[in-house]
Amino acid sequence: MRPFMDRDFLLNSDTAKRLYKNYADMEAIPVIDYHCHINPQEIYEDRQFDNIAQVWLGGDHYKWRQMRTCGIDEKYITGGAADYDKFRKWASIMPLLIGNPLYHWSHLELRYYFGFEGNLNGETADEVWNLCNDKLRTKEFSVRNIIRKSNVKLICTTDDPADSLEWHRKLSADDTFDVQVLPAWRPDRAMNIEKPDFAEYLRMLGDAAGIEITDMDSLYAALDKRMDYFAENGCTVSDHGLLYVMYNPAKEDEICDIFKKALRGCALSDLECMKYKTAFMLRMAAEYDRRGWVMQLHYGCKRDNNTYMFDRVGADTGFDCISNYTPADQLADFLNALAVQDAVPKTILYSLNPADNAVIGTIIGCFQGGLRGRLQHGSAWWFNDHFDGMVNQIKSLASTSALGNFVGMLTDSRSFLSYTRHDYFRRILCRIVGGWVENGEYPDDDILLSTVIKGISYNNAVDYFGFDLKKV
Amino acid sequence: MRPFMDRDFLLNSDTAKRLYKNYADMEAIPVIDYHCHINPQEIYEDRQFDNIAQVWLGGDHYKWRQMRTCGIDEKYITGGAADYDKFRKWASIMPLLIGNPLYHWSHLELRYYFGFEGNLNGETADEVWNLCNDKLRTKEFSVRNIIRKSNVKLICTTDDPADSLEWHRKLSADDTFDVQVLPAWRPDRAMNIEKPDFAEYLRMLGDAAGIEITDMDSLYAALDKRMDYFAENGCTVSDHGLLYVMYNPAKEDEICDIFKKALRGCALSDLECMKYKTAFMLRMAAEYDRRGWVMQLHYGCKRDNNTYMFDRVGADTGFDCISNYTPADQLADFLNALAVQDAVPKTILYSLNPADNAVIGTIIGCFQGGLRGRLQHGSAWWFNDHFDGMVNQIKSLASTSALGNFVGMLTDSRSFLSYTRHDYFRRILCRIVGGWVENGEYPDDDILLSTVIKGISYNNAVDYFGFDLKKV
Amino acid sequence: MRPFMDRDFLLNSDTAKRLYKNYADMEAIPVIDYHCHINPQEIYEDRQFDNIAQVWLGGDHYKWRQMRTCGIDEKYITGGAADYDKFRKWASIMPLLIGNPLYHWSHLELRYYFGFEGNLNGETADEVWNLCNDKLRTKEFSVRNIIRKSNVKLICTTDDPADSLEWHRKLSADDTFDVQVLPAWRPDRAMNIEKPDFAEYLRMLGDAAGIEITDMDSLYAALDKRMDYFAENGCTVSDHGLLYVMYNPAKEDEICDIFKKALRGCALSDLECMKYKTAFMLRMAAEYDRRGWVMQLHYGCKRDNNTYMFDRVGADTGFDCISNYTPADQLADFLNALAVQDAVPKTILYSLNPADNAVIGTIIGCFQGGLRGRLQHGSAWWFNDHFDGMVNQIKSLASTSALGNFVGMLTDSRSFLSYTRHDYFRRILCRIVGGWVENGEYPDDDILLSTVIKGISYNNAVDYFGFDLKKV
Repeated sequence: MRPFMDRDFLLNSDTAKRLYKNYADMEAIPVIDYHCHINPQEIYEDRQFDNIAQVWLGGDHYKWRQMRTCGIDEKYITGGAADYDKFRKWASIMPLLIGNPLYHWSHLELRYYFGFEGNLNGETADEVWNLCNDKLRTKEFSVRNIIRKSNVKLICTTDDPADSLEWHRKLSADDTFDVQVLPAWRPDRAMNIEKPDFAEYLRMLGDAAGIEITDMDSLYAALDKRMDYFAENGCTVSDHGLLYVMYNPAKEDEICDIFKKALRGCALSDLECMKYKTAFMLRMAAEYDRRGWVMQLHYGCKRDNNTYMFDRVGADTGFDCISNYTPADQLADFLNALAVQDAVPKTILYSLNPADNAVIGTIIGCFQGGLRGRLQHGSAWWFNDHFDGMVNQIKSLASTSALGNFVGMLTDSRSFLSYTRHDYFRRILCRIVGGWVENGEYPDDDILLSTVIKGISYNNAVDYFGFDLKKV
Repeated sequence: MRPFMDRDFLLNSDTAKRLYKNYADMEAIPVIDYHCHINPQEIYEDRQFDNIAQVWLGGDHYKWRQMRTCGIDEKYITGGAADYDKFRKWASIMPLLIGNPLYHWSHLELRYYFGFEGNLNGETADEVWNLCNDKLRTKEFSVRNIIRKSNVKLICTTDDPADSLEWHRKLSADDTFDVQVLPAWRPDRAMNIEKPDFAEYLRMLGDAAGIEITDMDSLYAALDKRMDYFAENGCTVSDHGLLYVMYNPAKEDEICDIFKKALRGCALSDLECMKYKTAFMLRMAAEYDRRGWVMQLHYGCKRDNNTYMFDRVGADTGFDCISNYTPADQLADFLNALAVQDAVPKTILYSLNPADNAVIGTIIGCFQGGLRGRLQHGSAWWFNDHFDGMVNQIKSLASTSALGNFVGMLTDSRSFLSYTRHDYFRRILCRIVGGWVENGEYPDDDILLSTVIKGISYNNAVDYFGFDLKKV
Repeated sequence: MRPFMDRDFLLNSDTAKRLYKNYADMEAIPVIDYHCHINPQEIYEDRQFDNIAQVWLGGDHYKWRQMRTCGIDEKYITGGAADYDKFRKWASIMPLLIGNPLYHWSHLELRYYFGFEGNLNGETADEVWNLCNDKLRTKEFSVRNIIRKSNVKLICTTDDPADSLEWHRKLSADDTFDVQVLPAWRPDRAMNIEKPDFAEYLRMLGDAAGIEITDMDSLYAALDKRMDYFAENGCTVSDHGLLYVMYNPAKEDEICDIFKKALRGCALSDLECMKYKTAFMLRMAAEYDRRGWVMQLHYGCKRDNNTYMFDRVGADTGFDCISNYTPADQLADFLNALAVQDAVPKTILYSLNPADNAVIGTIIGCFQGGLRGRLQHGSAWWFNDHFDGMVNQIKSLASTSALGNFVGMLTDSRSFLSYTRHDYFRRILCRIVGGWVENGEYPDDDILLSTVIKGISYNNAVDYFGFDLKKV
């Protein structure tokens, strides 16, 4: 029997251990976190936490959801209970989360950042509470020092086109912190024409760009100006959240009419929304291609399913689910509409439905060319970001495409302690590749293996996104 | 090499063996079979079988289907051939069922109930026939004694609202049998408005309730009265068979009109049917919540696909298949419509499409709260009730929800020898959890592990359904 | 650690090795390749290759697709670069294809046909180039001798109904070559009513049949006549490529009108196309049943997704993907429409969407009868024809049907070196079955195991297709 989550965690063969030690250990091979949801202000201000409940339970709807699943009262989740009581509730349900990634993530964080080697449960809650809080209150655990300790070289946040990027600019100007913190372009609010605040948002966007938005031309002009601004501030990545990747082409005139209807506050049909969104996405994608930006498409998520709770605690609080309407034909046709104008940008596809793995692996194959891995099957995302989900994504990608081109892991996180998700991913990667080598399915060749493992852990992302970083 | 299906069957590690022995062995940890299709009359009358063909081939369409697959003539399946000849045909195809759950189930039953340790095939058919029949004719193998030998403490059958529950009442009054045999509420015929016998069924239901059903109000009144009656007889569980979980809301008036149209024998459109069914299901669900009953939704099954055979041998004879139209959005919206009235009942979701595992795991997470595991991802069902299907359901549930809350296995069976399916499930559970412990993915902590394994095997079901049973 | 792809490749237990050696090794157990896309003319003329690039990169869009994925310029793929340069480009990307079936297939071919035991990459490219080319230019590597060396006994090509079968007839008359090369009937062009060349194709078909095609009757008469001709030339297998298996029944009159509209060059609606196709497929299937032919349905593929590349390099060049619209209800209803006329032919279902595995396993179970394995779940196809894809198909088939009836592997290939795909499949089969035996899930019984393994490798296909071959 192997000890509980020790340094060889998940590394089930000698080759796996060797690959991890030589080519994937976070101490030696740095981290690029090219997609997350942390707040750059907290980095600039070098926030310090009072206690572990603040870091873990302040905004992490993954944990909230499981607390509800275990019958914990909402007051200990998003309610007014004391941090200590919230933490004790969380600790008490941990043993029920057997086999859940939160079980592994939490213990990886406890071990990596705080040196706790036991397991968290109702009995050990106080010990962990005290241990973590003592450390968190030291300077060593300021946000910047956590990031440094995690060997992170670059972070991409997620930002609205109207954002001033104030904190990114301040960070960039700050010589005392050499981790790059770059904005990523997420124009969802300019696409979500069905939302009641669409017109209001466009005024905000127009203000930021200094352009009054009255039609599609002025919308695009405003977006272009903001993209210029994001580019000046180091942005090379965009991101979109979609129910599914739609393709409902329409004439330019019709799009204009739909847009103006929306500006006047008229209700739109579903089809009209999809036509506008299709046009919007095609325009954005072509622009990304022109600029050499990466387009990330996150789709297959149905959000805010529980209206009762939405009215009480708002969005991003743990009430989203996988959608199984993710039509392959529309996704392929959307990319084809870009291909015919020779304008397929670097693209990463993430579906929340794991049944789409093979679909994605084959669709990306239809639009490749010009550079290594132009289209990517993104790392297992959100509800799939667990052992089996990552194994399935990696194996599906290997089986249908060229795994050696993969840009690898990201945290997608709202927490500063989650860089160990990169470690979790790398252990799984080394386990799989190590297994192949041990079984004689791939040669035991150090040069080939170091290229593959270091590539997926770090180097491929440097190349792909064009980051100003040295390769390892 | 491990011997063929010995006592360590599927227990591939020391920890798996230990968990099974201490916390899951049916000798020590009893069985709750909260969903099956056995006939309570046969229990009351303590039926005795003449031969193994009666038990195995009398009504088991799983076996019939595989006999057809192997080219056996229908006369040996549902036809008039002698029991002995039917059994020999079944025995002769067994070796072709390599890797099929029927292969394991049959041999588990032969070993557990009859002590046969060989393998069944054309050569051994006579030996098995004689061995089993000699035992079956003894009092030790009466239906009640089989149930007792299987350490079953409670059985829920599947019953129509119009059922008199005569046999449940007699069993309840019978002091000589202390296994609880409870009814479960399955009102499919009151929902299936498109069926030609719908109006006729409503008269039967009205008679049972002593209420003439002429509109939605009287329908609900009749159902309420029957639910009261079922509750008096110990019912706490409902069950629904659905093509998919639909959500087509409509105004009350419109539902009434549709209902009256159906009573008059008018044809309904698909949409009208779905509107009625949506209203019906919402009303049932809210009522279950009020009563503290559990709602089981079995969906994703397309039934009676072979009209030629349906006309000859009727329903439930082996001609059903998985449907892949199981829209996640309608399922989520249906549950949300209950959530907004704070009326989500305890719910178990079973999809026949294994590609829905992750969808279910994430949808249940949107409506949890108030008690441990209010919404459950049901055990791998029917065509998925095999080794890989169970592994996938357990791992998907663990990855997306809290496995420790799981209410575990049921037989869904028409046969009195199928309690070993609980054993099969528990071995797989111990194998998975044992593997996690051996690999250092979960602590080797007896208190935590006993809670998890005994919980899923027995205790969670006691709590969840509110059965009057002592925990172990 | 096991050596790289040695003779025990993928055989991870003693039982797996024993099963492979005794019942699956291609040296002893011959190959039936009942579905492929090779050119019979090249067999008749006993083509000789100049170099390995011709065999590997001349028409293999699997490899082209991965070269594009790795950023190789099109001139080295379908363009005018020299064979040597193309091969070097291919060799250079091999290490990135870690975990891809092309990695295994290529090395199996290098080892089996050329005795190369290293791994192909940029460094070894020249060595492999010279080694292979020296051999390819010898008589031992003529097409016929490659087929002989591969122990192939029978090949089914893929042929249009209008084809003269000239080369099949010549091969049949040639006493010096005793491998059967039979035609297979692929009438896609007569079904694809939406294609611009439909009317033109019908003239060609009419010419071949000596019947002028002006309505459905004359269409069917022409097809019948060509089926007679194919049958005379040994055909017992048909094949269809479908987006999905549709079921849109319509009256005969309506079908006639649609057909005549198409002949006049009028545009058809999608629904009209589907009605015609449904009628066409029903008629074909019934005819296959009457003749005892096998119907292969390949569906779930969306073809030619990249218009830009299609305009430049045409069809079958690496721009196809998996479709996830494969409605189970239409497939089941289509088969039911045949069942009600007692005309379900021997049928093999292949979906390109691996999420359909369980759906297929349960649909075939609804229409079985009359012979062993009338309906089959076809071997993992195209994008799924890799280690995990084959494991999943075999296990799903075993779990939902009777694996012992399976007709096993085919190459689906355009290359004469790809018979080692049968070896790859057999190794995986022996690995799975060997694992079951080692784990005590199936008895270690030589008679049963030899029936299963030799059956799936060879004998079942002989029986099922009715080939004139001796069983082993």
